[in-house]
Amino acid sequence: MKIALLGGTGDIGEGLALRWADETDHEVLIGSRDPDRAAEKAAEYERELDRRDVECTIRGFGNPEAASRGDVVVLSVPAYHVSDTIEAVADGLDSDTVLVSPAVGMKRDDDGMHYHRPSAGSVTAVAAKAAPEDVPVVGAFHNLAAGRLADLDAELGVDTLLIGDDPDAKERVRRLADAVEGLRPLDAGPLANAPEIEGLTPLMINVGRYNEGLHDLGVSFR
Amino acid sequence: MKIALLGGTGDIGEGLALRWADETDHEVLIGSRDPDRAAEKAAEYERELDRRDVECTIRGFGNPEAASRGDVVVLSVPAYHVSDTIEAVADGLDSDTVLVSPAVGMKRDDDGMHYHRPSAGSVTAVAAKAAPEDVPVVGAFHNLAAGRLADLDAELGVDTLLIGDDPDAKERVRRLADAVEGLRPLDAGPLANAPEIEGLTPLMINVGRYNEGLHDLGVSFR
Repeated sequence: MKIALLGGTGDIGEGLALRWADETDHEVLIGSRDPDRAAEKAAEYERELDRRDVECTIRGFGNPEAASRGDVVVLSVPAYHVSDTIEAVADGLDSDTVLVSPAVGMKRDDDGMHYHRPSAGSVTAVAAKAAPEDVPVVGAFHNLAAGRLADLDAELGVDTLLIGDDPDAKERVRRLADAVEGLRPLDAGPLANAPEIEGLTPLMINVGRYNEGLHDLGVSFR
Repeated sequence: MKIALLGGTGDIGEGLALRWADETDHEVLIGSRDPDRAAEKAAEYERELDRRDVECTIRGFGNPEAASRGDVVVLSVPAYHVSDTIEAVADGLDSDTVLVSPAVGMKRDDDGMHYHRPSAGSVTAVAAKAAPEDVPVVGAFHNLAAGRLADLDAELGVDTLLIGDDPDAKERVRRLADAVEGLRPLDAGPLANAPEIEGLTPLMINVGRYNEGLHDLGVSFR
């Protein structure tokens, strides 16, 4: 399977790229608005995995080309770029593609981080609205700390919550999550249940801020 | 110390009453709008603890009397009763009392449970608004499954998040939470950070609904 990480040059995209390249046989494609930047980061990820004796090929493309090649396309871009990123790649998507939305809208004030809920209800709903009608959207990977995910020596031991209205698409993403050691996928129901999942991310950041020794937090339901 | 659990006849109040009576030397007072019902449940809790060879005295009162006797007053009532409960007991509160708000507003639809955010920003903010100006409010115990808390044989191994603007009041509640085995109190900052904590409760219910074998869930930050 080919996994395209749009905006895969930073944040959560880097960690997902490294983990999937390290722990699965799937082909990882890095997308960026700037194809050169994508190729550069892809080579950087390859070098990091090579240092760990992991043989793999990671290639970089412009977002549209990465998306058209991907069987699963992860929108690892900031929340405010979800819509325009989908629009830019829509021609290359079809009903066999699964779009994955991990983005969360947040705003910071003096007290901490807060969930900035879009009028569509959630960022995942924004993605579903922007996606071509026949392309299923699954929400996942909202609550992972990017730094910890990208550190292949860091143990995860955390959960990720999946939401989606298409059972087959959700199952495909569930298997991808399950392939990452220490990451437990849990079903949180239909797309309409996204807001509470997205709202967990600013809470995790607040808990990290106010408790010494806790940072790059994940969450485990138990 | 005296802990008054207003609405302590059901839901989260029962679990907190049993755990504190079991694991601390604090005096537990059960409050209810109906003093007879409070006395009845207090006797029931005492009998349950007696069966476990725990000697303690739990007494029941009308909410106003329980509140005026309590050093810490927990509003273990449904979200829509937070304001009127505070109004009913306000005369018995003073600046030495700490009010604790664990309530969460939720609404259910076909997809699952959703956070029903009050216009004040959070239920904890509703409590702070209704409380007399000199009475500090601390948000805590929002994300505990009532059934598991009330089952003294059940291990917890979960976190509870504290929010508040008065450091001394927050510390008093932190110690109370810490006294419960398997419950780890974590600081989530000022009262303004309440919405994301309250929104976690419907998410936990959704995760319990959509994953076989998971129910009465708690959450652990790690």
